[in-house]
Amino acid sequence: MMRTLEGVLAPVITTFRPDGELDARAFERNVASHLSAGVHGIVVTGSTGEAALLDERERVALVEAARGVTPPDRWLIAGTGAESTRNCILQTRAAAERGADAVLVVAPHYYGSAMTPAALLAHYHAVADASPVPVILYTIPKYMHFATPAEVVAELAQHGNIIGIKDSSGSAELLEGYLGAASADFAVLTGNGGLFRHSLSRGARGGILAVALFAPALAMAVWHEASGGGASAEGAQGAMAPLARRIVGELGVPGVKAALDAVGLQGGPVRLPLLPLEAAQVAEVGELLQAHLTAGA
Amino acid sequence: MMRTLEGVLAPVITTFRPDGELDARAFERNVASHLSAGVHGIVVTGSTGEAALLDERERVALVEAARGVTPPDRWLIAGTGAESTRNCILQTRAAAERGADAVLVVAPHYYGSAMTPAALLAHYHAVADASPVPVILYTIPKYMHFATPAEVVAELAQHGNIIGIKDSSGSAELLEGYLGAASADFAVLTGNGGLFRHSLSRGARGGILAVALFAPALAMAVWHEASGGGASAEGAQGAMAPLARRIVGELGVPGVKAALDAVGLQGGPVRLPLLPLEAAQVAEVGELLQAHLTAGA
Amino acid sequence: MMRTLEGVLAPVITTFRPDGELDARAFERNVASHLSAGVHGIVVTGSTGEAALLDERERVALVEAARGVTPPDRWLIAGTGAESTRNCILQTRAAAERGADAVLVVAPHYYGSAMTPAALLAHYHAVADASPVPVILYTIPKYMHFATPAEVVAELAQHGNIIGIKDSSGSAELLEGYLGAASADFAVLTGNGGLFRHSLSRGARGGILAVALFAPALAMAVWHEASGGGASAEGAQGAMAPLARRIVGELGVPGVKAALDAVGLQGGPVRLPLLPLEAAQVAEVGELLQAHLTAGA
Amino acid sequence: MMRTLEGVLAPVITTFRPDGELDARAFERNVASHLSAGVHGIVVTGSTGEAALLDERERVALVEAARGVTPPDRWLIAGTGAESTRNCILQTRAAAERGADAVLVVAPHYYGSAMTPAALLAHYHAVADASPVPVILYTIPKYMHFATPAEVVAELAQHGNIIGIKDSSGSAELLEGYLGAASADFAVLTGNGGLFRHSLSRGARGGILAVALFAPALAMAVWHEASGGGASAEGAQGAMAPLARRIVGELGVPGVKAALDAVGLQGGPVRLPLLPLEAAQVAEVGELLQAHLTAGA
Repeated sequence: MMRTLEGVLAPVITTFRPDGELDARAFERNVASHLSAGVHGIVVTGSTGEAALLDERERVALVEAARGVTPPDRWLIAGTGAESTRNCILQTRAAAERGADAVLVVAPHYYGSAMTPAALLAHYHAVADASPVPVILYTIPKYMHFATPAEVVAELAQHGNIIGIKDSSGSAELLEGYLGAASADFAVLTGNGGLFRHSLSRGARGGILAVALFAPALAMAVWHEASGGGASAEGAQGAMAPLARRIVGELGVPGVKAALDAVGLQGGPVRLPLLPLEAAQVAEVGELLQAHLTAGA
Repeated sequence: MMRTLEGVLAPVITTFRPDGELDARAFERNVASHLSAGVHGIVVTGSTGEAALLDERERVALVEAARGVTPPDRWLIAGTGAESTRNCILQTRAAAERGADAVLVVAPHYYGSAMTPAALLAHYHAVADASPVPVILYTIPKYMHFATPAEVVAELAQHGNIIGIKDSSGSAELLEGYLGAASADFAVLTGNGGLFRHSLSRGARGGILAVALFAPALAMAVWHEASGGGASAEGAQGAMAPLARRIVGELGVPGVKAALDAVGLQGGPVRLPLLPLEAAQVAEVGELLQAHLTAGA
Repeated sequence: MMRTLEGVLAPVITTFRPDGELDARAFERNVASHLSAGVHGIVVTGSTGEAALLDERERVALVEAARGVTPPDRWLIAGTGAESTRNCILQTRAAAERGADAVLVVAPHYYGSAMTPAALLAHYHAVADASPVPVILYTIPKYMHFATPAEVVAELAQHGNIIGIKDSSGSAELLEGYLGAASADFAVLTGNGGLFRHSLSRGARGGILAVALFAPALAMAVWHEASGGGASAEGAQGAMAPLARRIVGELGVPGVKAALDAVGLQGGPVRLPLLPLEAAQVAEVGELLQAHLTAGA
Repeated sequence: MMRTLEGVLAPVITTFRPDGELDARAFERNVASHLSAGVHGIVVTGSTGEAALLDERERVALVEAARGVTPPDRWLIAGTGAESTRNCILQTRAAAERGADAVLVVAPHYYGSAMTPAALLAHYHAVADASPVPVILYTIPKYMHFATPAEVVAELAQHGNIIGIKDSSGSAELLEGYLGAASADFAVLTGNGGLFRHSLSRGARGGILAVALFAPALAMAVWHEASGGGASAEGAQGAMAPLARRIVGELGVPGVKAALDAVGLQGGPVRLPLLPLEAAQVAEVGELLQAHLTAGA
């Protein structure tokens, strides 16, 4: 039995203790809180989870911790992208062993000019062949400095173990291209909170949205409108958009952590070389949340 | 009495005769047809109008020709951007003299690294001070290779003779930033057909949409839903998106001209160094139109 | 009889009066001074000449003024690049009529994604076919946002009326690619003062160097070493490099004009939207010149 | 006693067996061969060494293997860059324990927009404070998608444990900026074979050059001219430039491995997602070597 890949998925942050080590308890409390807000699942060790700043042991520890508090009817997705196909497969298997339901695999990008369609196809086919759990593609041009071409995605969507793509480009044109590959077996998810309602209306089946970490009601309102014909979520989308733009898009991980602190969850410190927000930025995050969390309710 | 800057505006193409000269009759027929489809106005000598490939005489001739067939209750907007402030002012005055109701001014961009906020403010303030008609800002990162910063737009929006911005970035985040400057006196228009419905729901007041040249009913349906509470235009937006992505975004001016040919208007040749579509691309345009013009109706 | 395209060519600035009009007298004095410093010729209406900020009448006036003070044994090259092939040809013919010995043609770039190899070949072939004088290609990725591919240059080098390329990329790899097309009939010139000596040692036959406007002795010393086996110009190149980097590369046209003012020529004001240097930057230019003009002598 | 950071350093490849595991014997043979050609040292686990595709155990194994065949009077430098400061320090310590004389630290770049001067300073200061061996900065815009600013480098050069920078930008202007920080205690090395002679003449003290892996005599000839006043190396530089451009710059790691195979060392397979060269490209590498290794001798 295969569950449907859809809905609101929360890409959780990684919490650190003052000494810089993982804070697993805070992490579990955050995850439990996100799930109690009704999201369809969580993503651990993604970009918002500072995965690039973690070591391999920490990454599997987070999958394990998340599984402990994530019931089987919610998605637990683990980011397992790596520059080498071999390493990506190792991390994918490790995440599956610890209970991940699926893996989210950002395209390799360090040797960017070598990432031809043939190279991307070879990489993802090898990962999908080897993975014990379904694979979700992930394209984030802001960090990759290219976008996986729509034609490559269309071909990968034919693979039985590749079930979707997260598109964090924020570009309506790229999204439209990926939607050409959408089917019952291949879901397009947006990673852009400002485009969530638009994406759903165009055929996306959900979103992996950092804004859902600190404003879950807004994201869920948009989802309910689209899926169940609930009330218009124009207001919710309108409240979500400036939060997504400023806190997620511009302030990034330190901004998201400050927002979690502001709503009573644990954000806490980031890892170097990321720097914490300045005091004025922390205050701005608080004001944005106050203005828009209420407005969208 | 000042009309409102809103609705669907069609950025008309420039028609050429086989000998390469302007074909003013075909141009007028096109414009009349666009207007009879109900759009709120037209834009001449914009990016879709191959303005960069025209000389100064041709540009004013097109304004004059357009004015002859555009009734006073429809917008006639002329693109008058230029690399030098001085030249932009000359072209702006010339367009106003020939009857343009407003001018659309792309930011100077050749000396891109010199286009600091101070330089952009100096340029637009000088143009707006000198212009006999209202000024609309224009940002198109695809051609400019930067985006006018939201903070600069917010400051320019305070000028009494600057009435709006056309945002062709296709980025939801940039749009959101520009919407921060929106007011009764400053309209945000999108230049991205794939984001038209989204933009209107977020507070944009209209669109300058090449897709409205060959699929005006789709654009108008989206407008009617947003402005008058008409029927849901989800289908119309859905039909418009792939046309905008492929024909406007990827095939560009030659694609738009092929689409006009396909729907019974006159597209005709492009000017060098633009090249005409290949035969297979012309066929593809025809198929896309057949698939989506009907679907969206 | 055809002169050789080689040596040090000075891309002269355009001088303006306080009222913003051309100052032809100052222009002629500058040109005469550059020539008396021994350079092999001048380039008018190039990027350093603010060509993008001039109108067509001004451009031909500058060619005419330059011809008046440039003896027939020195090169007078006019920048005549334009976005449309047609307009480029018109400007090319106008420049040739006023006495230009050759034209320097930057690649069209506004519709950048349409500038395929086929489009670039069509453009340059048409221009070279129509031009009464030899054509020099010009690639400047900083402003064009792409580089004319080496393969395209190699094909264009076969045209009997295309005699060279100016490469302002500052990239040793691109230069190396263009050098693959070098022959007795096709000269590669660098536009990068910091790479002048390197370029000559690699097979370039000269440079079009803004630094030669205010530090001609340094550029000529490098040329004499390379061409005549003169004394080592390592010191001259070493003095030229920081001037080229800071004044030409970073401060741009306003920096070059300030440097001309500092050495007793007439720089004067720039045209909007370019802004003049701040006072501290003017002082910095003076200090750089004092430090390096002497050191390199 | 501190040795001088200068000369020709060879960034060795990582050899793999047919089953995909490290081939330590082939690696040692290669290293011994590079050293016997006279280079001043080697760099392991750099970009050319496919470091991004290795796991942590493999990286330290390579340092250990290299130390075994590298005499104490030659540099053994290990690439230890990582996205997190913490991980970079761990890898740096591990490399030092296995015998690395210095570490080469590429700037973190995944969260590129967060890599402000303050973040880069914090990262490198922490690494340099913690490292048991001297630190060499590394900037490679092709992979990082930004360049460490010259001002940041100047400040880092003041740190007692930071002894130099490898600049792989290939930009003469960036190099010039970094040279502003050069001193007896801070060496600028180029990573661009095409600019080796130029860089030395401008004040660089050496190069970390992939071209030195398969054409060491050319690189050494350039070094000898610059350091000892040996014979002119214009020919050697001329032979090196097209090899560096095509094999290193364009064909990348698979090209370098094919070149090693061609000269009788062991290149062998690359790791996915890198793909091996096509047969025609392998032939081209052979022809380029044949043409230029002889010519430069």
